[in-house]
Amino acid sequence: MNVAILGFGTIGSGVYEIISDISKKINDIHVVSILDLPQNKDKLSIITSDIHDIVNCDEIDLVVETMGGIHPAYEFIMACLNAKKHVVTANKAVVAKHLQEFLSIANENGVNFLFEASVGGGIPWLASVSKASRIDEVDRFYGIFNGTSNFILDYMNTYQKDFNDALTLAQELGYAEANPSADIDGYDVQNKVCISSNLAFNSAVNMDEFTIYSMANISFDDIQYLKESGCMIKYIGEAQRINNIYEAFVMPNIFKASSVEANISTNFNIATLHGETIGDLKFYGQGAGKLATANAIVQDILDIQSGCNNVVISESTELTHSDTLLSNQFMIRTNNAVEMSSIIENIDIYKDNYYITTKFMTTRDFKANFYDIINSDKKVLIAKIANFE
Amino acid sequence: MNVAILGFGTIGSGVYEIISDISKKINDIHVVSILDLPQNKDKLSIITSDIHDIVNCDEIDLVVETMGGIHPAYEFIMACLNAKKHVVTANKAVVAKHLQEFLSIANENGVNFLFEASVGGGIPWLASVSKASRIDEVDRFYGIFNGTSNFILDYMNTYQKDFNDALTLAQELGYAEANPSADIDGYDVQNKVCISSNLAFNSAVNMDEFTIYSMANISFDDIQYLKESGCMIKYIGEAQRINNIYEAFVMPNIFKASSVEANISTNFNIATLHGETIGDLKFYGQGAGKLATANAIVQDILDIQSGCNNVVISESTELTHSDTLLSNQFMIRTNNAVEMSSIIENIDIYKDNYYITTKFMTTRDFKANFYDIINSDKKVLIAKIANFE
Repeated sequence: MNVAILGFGTIGSGVYEIISDISKKINDIHVVSILDLPQNKDKLSIITSDIHDIVNCDEIDLVVETMGGIHPAYEFIMACLNAKKHVVTANKAVVAKHLQEFLSIANENGVNFLFEASVGGGIPWLASVSKASRIDEVDRFYGIFNGTSNFILDYMNTYQKDFNDALTLAQELGYAEANPSADIDGYDVQNKVCISSNLAFNSAVNMDEFTIYSMANISFDDIQYLKESGCMIKYIGEAQRINNIYEAFVMPNIFKASSVEANISTNFNIATLHGETIGDLKFYGQGAGKLATANAIVQDILDIQSGCNNVVISESTELTHSDTLLSNQFMIRTNNAVEMSSIIENIDIYKDNYYITTKFMTTRDFKANFYDIINSDKKVLIAKIANFE
Repeated sequence: MNVAILGFGTIGSGVYEIISDISKKINDIHVVSILDLPQNKDKLSIITSDIHDIVNCDEIDLVVETMGGIHPAYEFIMACLNAKKHVVTANKAVVAKHLQEFLSIANENGVNFLFEASVGGGIPWLASVSKASRIDEVDRFYGIFNGTSNFILDYMNTYQKDFNDALTLAQELGYAEANPSADIDGYDVQNKVCISSNLAFNSAVNMDEFTIYSMANISFDDIQYLKESGCMIKYIGEAQRINNIYEAFVMPNIFKASSVEANISTNFNIATLHGETIGDLKFYGQGAGKLATANAIVQDILDIQSGCNNVVISESTELTHSDTLLSNQFMIRTNNAVEMSSIIENIDIYKDNYYITTKFMTTRDFKANFYDIINSDKKVLIAKIANFE
């Protein structure tokens, strides 16, 4: 099987390294072309800067897309599928936006479109969701889908540091971008929850309707307060489905210190699915990084080579998102004084912060009832009390 | 695809329920025959008490074996494979003993032999080990492979109970057998480590050479002492490989309280594999139970139906077990007074117990140096300091 790689950055070069490593047991897979910038053409004889060299080459069976972003990744993927080449990608942004279209075009052309590396890096998460949903309706999944946010929270907790210290270190270590918004404000996890929902619920979902709150306002005081209450805060992506209605969140969640999620350290990811007969399954590993992510891409290539493609989305009925599907307890931390009321379960005051736990209520009621508090404090923390057990 | 089920106990009836459940999406798989005792023939029209009705029936494509034990499971599996029927089993004892033979006979007859449910119940562990070893050499795996032992330890820890109270409750709840030896003395995990080693290391291993210590001597004092040191004890199966040498253990391991393993509650299982490019992957779920285990069996059936069988053991070179491969710290707890020596790192005295931590040494040196202590105290606890990170 002859493979082309679009983009020769961290992940693309990782794929090349694994496939080319003769100590690995990768048989009959050959990288024959790499799309990279013109100035890098001298690096390797198989580098081209013209996508047509790849799209029009009959000898290329499969294209790996690792460029990231929507354009021109979308156009290149479509061109390759229409040229009857299998496509494997790690690009969560383009998959979240165009998955149904890619699957449909791949199907029309008799080729495969796989994207394991787009969620959870090296963790075999999407294949496992697909496999579980062969038997059960997966009715719920949740997890730590972003390693950067977990690194920040774990570092704050372990070394008693403020958010900004942890973020700066994450940037120095290359875990966080110069502009960290995608990781800490939820857009990265939003894409991953969208992609996972497509497979878990076997249906298209609209990620613009998710409830999303940033983790950027989590302070060391918050972590300290929660620790004294036997809890830990983690940044969680989540979706639940009941019949044709679903609800999805990306927001901080408060876990008991003795939960598995509370004890996920550094930049590791963990994701959990629930099905009727299988119960809870959890999958843990490196959610990013050169070789782990490249490993997931090569696994997709091997699945295509061996004719095993578990990703089959048979129907594509659009589910309806509802912010009244679930009843949750929320936690708000604010500097503004708050008075007890019938919708509040508890108020703790810790280092001049008010920690409010609400009674159980829908997301819509929460947003309506606490609108003033949430909008009068720029540094407010909004979290959910995790109730996944 | 027409399926027969051998044995109609908890797991066998679970498989029947899942396949027959019209709300599930199992297409074109039909249970057409069930082997059960003569006195149960009236329960269901497809029950037979004669294995020949199944072996000789040309319309049966695949046989699920859920009888357990070595005989007659071994003979029945061989007969079905030789009759060119795929076989799927949950029977760890017979797989641990005869895996290479089953795979070889299946191969000769052009059929599949799958056994996901034999290790880790509903957790997709064996398929994941096989998949990981398509790219990496898996050089290490370990985990909580026995739900009964974990239930006992978690219950002792959570409710401050003695071993026997926890064991009695486990028996009342149906988690432990009347004779609990297989679960608490390590034979159950020994089988599972043997089967996992076959796939992880792509080679036959001799499980009689594993180092095995019981968990039956773990006391509430031990748990209390370890808790005060920020640790938790878990019953672990483990194997590591370097080139053609491997070492395998089944024994209590002491984990930091903040590790993932320390926080696995009730009767859940978790298993971890390590590979060069993928790093650590962990898989968590129900390691036993009717529907979770039956789910794993049905997943195997679906893999065979779709022509996806990742379990391929190409070569079958026997690896050599060595008790000098690894250097570990061990912990011994005894009532007998122990004096400090050059091979001891630390001695703590807690409630008249001596807790000895050894310096790093090989398993062989440990057994030789501490022979007298270990053999002079029937209630001695022998554990390893977990060093998996």
